[in-house]
Amino acid sequence: MSGAIYFKNNRLFYLDQTELPTKEIYRECRTLRDGFKAIKYLQIRGAPLIGVFSAYCVYIAIKDFPNYHKDKFIKYLDKVVDFLKSARPTAVNLSWAVERVRDAAKDNLSSSVKALKKIILEEAKRIHSEDIKLCLRMAEEGVKLINRGDRVLTHCNTGFLATSGEGTALGVIYKAKEVYKNIKVFVDETRPLLQGARLTAWELCKKKIDATLITDSMAGYLMKQGMIDKVFVGADRITLQGDVANKIGTYSLAVLANHHRIPFYVVAPFSSFDLTIDKGEDIPIEERSPWEVKCIDRKLIAPKNINVYNPAFDVTPHHLITAIVTDRGIVYPPFKKNIKMVLSYE
Amino acid sequence: MSGAIYFKNNRLFYLDQTELPTKEIYRECRTLRDGFKAIKYLQIRGAPLIGVFSAYCVYIAIKDFPNYHKDKFIKYLDKVVDFLKSARPTAVNLSWAVERVRDAAKDNLSSSVKALKKIILEEAKRIHSEDIKLCLRMAEEGVKLINRGDRVLTHCNTGFLATSGEGTALGVIYKAKEVYKNIKVFVDETRPLLQGARLTAWELCKKKIDATLITDSMAGYLMKQGMIDKVFVGADRITLQGDVANKIGTYSLAVLANHHRIPFYVVAPFSSFDLTIDKGEDIPIEERSPWEVKCIDRKLIAPKNINVYNPAFDVTPHHLITAIVTDRGIVYPPFKKNIKMVLSYE
Repeated sequence: MSGAIYFKNNRLFYLDQTELPTKEIYRECRTLRDGFKAIKYLQIRGAPLIGVFSAYCVYIAIKDFPNYHKDKFIKYLDKVVDFLKSARPTAVNLSWAVERVRDAAKDNLSSSVKALKKIILEEAKRIHSEDIKLCLRMAEEGVKLINRGDRVLTHCNTGFLATSGEGTALGVIYKAKEVYKNIKVFVDETRPLLQGARLTAWELCKKKIDATLITDSMAGYLMKQGMIDKVFVGADRITLQGDVANKIGTYSLAVLANHHRIPFYVVAPFSSFDLTIDKGEDIPIEERSPWEVKCIDRKLIAPKNINVYNPAFDVTPHHLITAIVTDRGIVYPPFKKNIKMVLSYE
Repeated sequence: MSGAIYFKNNRLFYLDQTELPTKEIYRECRTLRDGFKAIKYLQIRGAPLIGVFSAYCVYIAIKDFPNYHKDKFIKYLDKVVDFLKSARPTAVNLSWAVERVRDAAKDNLSSSVKALKKIILEEAKRIHSEDIKLCLRMAEEGVKLINRGDRVLTHCNTGFLATSGEGTALGVIYKAKEVYKNIKVFVDETRPLLQGARLTAWELCKKKIDATLITDSMAGYLMKQGMIDKVFVGADRITLQGDVANKIGTYSLAVLANHHRIPFYVVAPFSSFDLTIDKGEDIPIEERSPWEVKCIDRKLIAPKNINVYNPAFDVTPHHLITAIVTDRGIVYPPFKKNIKMVLSYE
C-alpha cells in the first residue's frame, strides 16, 4: 500500500494524515459523509489531493443511487457536489474537481443513470492520473530553478501527501535530489496543524533528503544569516493577477524573502488557478476552530477562555513572488499577461 | 502568594513557569543546583526576573558556607557566580546581577564572612526592589507611545512572570489599561516553548485585558490587514548601537513591521544593555535542545530522527527599531549616541 489515496475494487481508501507521523493508518471512504469529514477535518489535505479525492467522493456518493430515475439522480448529483464544495472554502481544486465530474455527467444527459455513474468514475480516474502527470511536469519545470547545493526553505506540506503524485513544491525538491543537485531543505513546522513537522519532515525522511526542521518564527533569522537560497511553496488558489492563497505563514515568508532578496517561488498545477478572480482580496479565507491553536494533540497549551484568531490561509500579493511554476511552464511577471498565455498551452 | 518569586524567612520560592497555564506550583530553591536548573530549564525565565532570581541564588548558595575561612569563601563565591552565569548565555541580566552581588561583597573584603553574606543578601534584595521600580518607570515612559484604542502585537512573555515587577513590554500594556487607553492585544504563541500562549495569554486573562492569541506565522497577515497599530517586545540584551537580542521570532516581526510601516518598540531596563558590545552579531545566541521543537508537552510531533535547528534568540538590528523604552526615558535613533546619553541619567 502506498500513496495518499487509492481506488481499488470500486472502493476508495485514504491515508489518515491526522495520525502521521506516529501512525500510518489507511481508512475507507464509504459514504458522502465520510468523504466530507475526511476533507473538513484534514485527514485528507493539500489542494491537488483534495481535488482528486473529492472527485472520487462524488462517485462514492452516487454509485448506489437507484438507476431508474434520472431527474432525481441529477438533482442528487448537484446536491452532492455542493455539499462537498462546502467542506473547505479556500482551495479552488475542490470545486474545480467536483464540478468537472458533474459536468462530465451533464454533458451526457441522454445516457442512462448507470452509464452516467460510469462516466463520473472515469472522469475521477482521469483527474487522478492527470494529477500524477501534472506533478511530473511541475517537477521538470521547477528543477530548472534549483542550483547544485541550494538550501531551500519550504512551508506546510506539498509532497506526495498533498497530491496523488510526487507533489508540487516538494515534487521539485524530489526531482532535484533525483538529478543529484545535492540540496538541503529547511522545513517550517507550520503551526497550528504542524503539516511541516508531521508530514513534510516525514516525507523528507522517507526520501532520505538532508532536511532540518525549524519553527515558523525562525525563518527570518535563517534568511538573515544567509542560510537560505530559495523559498518554494505550494498554492491553494491563484488569481488572474498572480496573487496566491496558501497556508497561513506563506505571506510572512514572502515579505521576509523579499527583504533579504531571496527568490520566492510558488509551484501549482493549472487547476489551482481561479481566473474568475482578479485580486487576492477576493479569495474567501477559511477560519478554523480556535482549539487548533489552543490545543496540541488534545492537550491545552493556553488558557481555556483566551480569544483566538485562526485563519487557515493568507494571501501573498503577486509583487512578492519571483515566479510561479506550473505544469505548463514557469510564469514570470508581469503575471496578469503571462498567466493567461501560459495557461492557454495544453 | 503572588508574583513570580518571593523571598521569605531566609528562603527563596518561585512559581514553576513550565507548569503554567494549567497548574500554579511554587517551588523552593534550596541549593545552587536548584537555582541553576530552574534557570536552565526555564522554570524561571524572562531577562529581568532571571537577574533578580540569580542574585538570590548566589545568597542561597553561600549562606551555609563555613564562616571561618574568608579566602575559601571568596573563591567559592567566584565559582558560584561563574556557574550561575553558565546557565544561560544570551540574557545579559544574569551576569549583570550575579556579578553585582559578588562585587558588593568584594568591595567589603575587610568584613567578616558573616557580614559579607549579609551584604550579598542586601544587594540581592536591592536588585529585587529596584526591578519593581524599573518596571514602573518603563511603564510610565512606554505608555506615552500608546494611543487610545491601539491594537498592540507582542511576542513571548514580558510581564509579571518575566520580571519581579509588572513587566517590560507587558508592563506598558498594563499601564495603558490602567489609564483607560482601551487597547486590544494580539499575542504571538511563541514557539517552541509557547511563552505567549502559556504565559502572556494567562497574564492577560488575569488582568482582564482584551487579548487574542495567534500563531507566530499569522503576525504578517494581521499586519497586512491593518489589524496591528504597534509592536511591543522585550529584550534579553541590547548592544551599544541598539541591536537587540530577544526571543526567536522577534527579528521576523521587526522586518514585517518595517514592511508595513508599523512602529516597532523594545522595552527594557538599563540592566539589559551591554555596552561592552557594539554589534548584535557579537551577542552569543543560545541553541537549545532539538526536542523542544520535536516534542510538545513530551509528545512527539515530528519524525524522531529529523534534524532540528533551535536558536532560542535572534538579533534585530537597530535600523528596524523605532524606539527603545528604558526606565530612564525613551531612546530614539541615532541609538549609538542616544543610548549612551540616556543611560548616563540616574
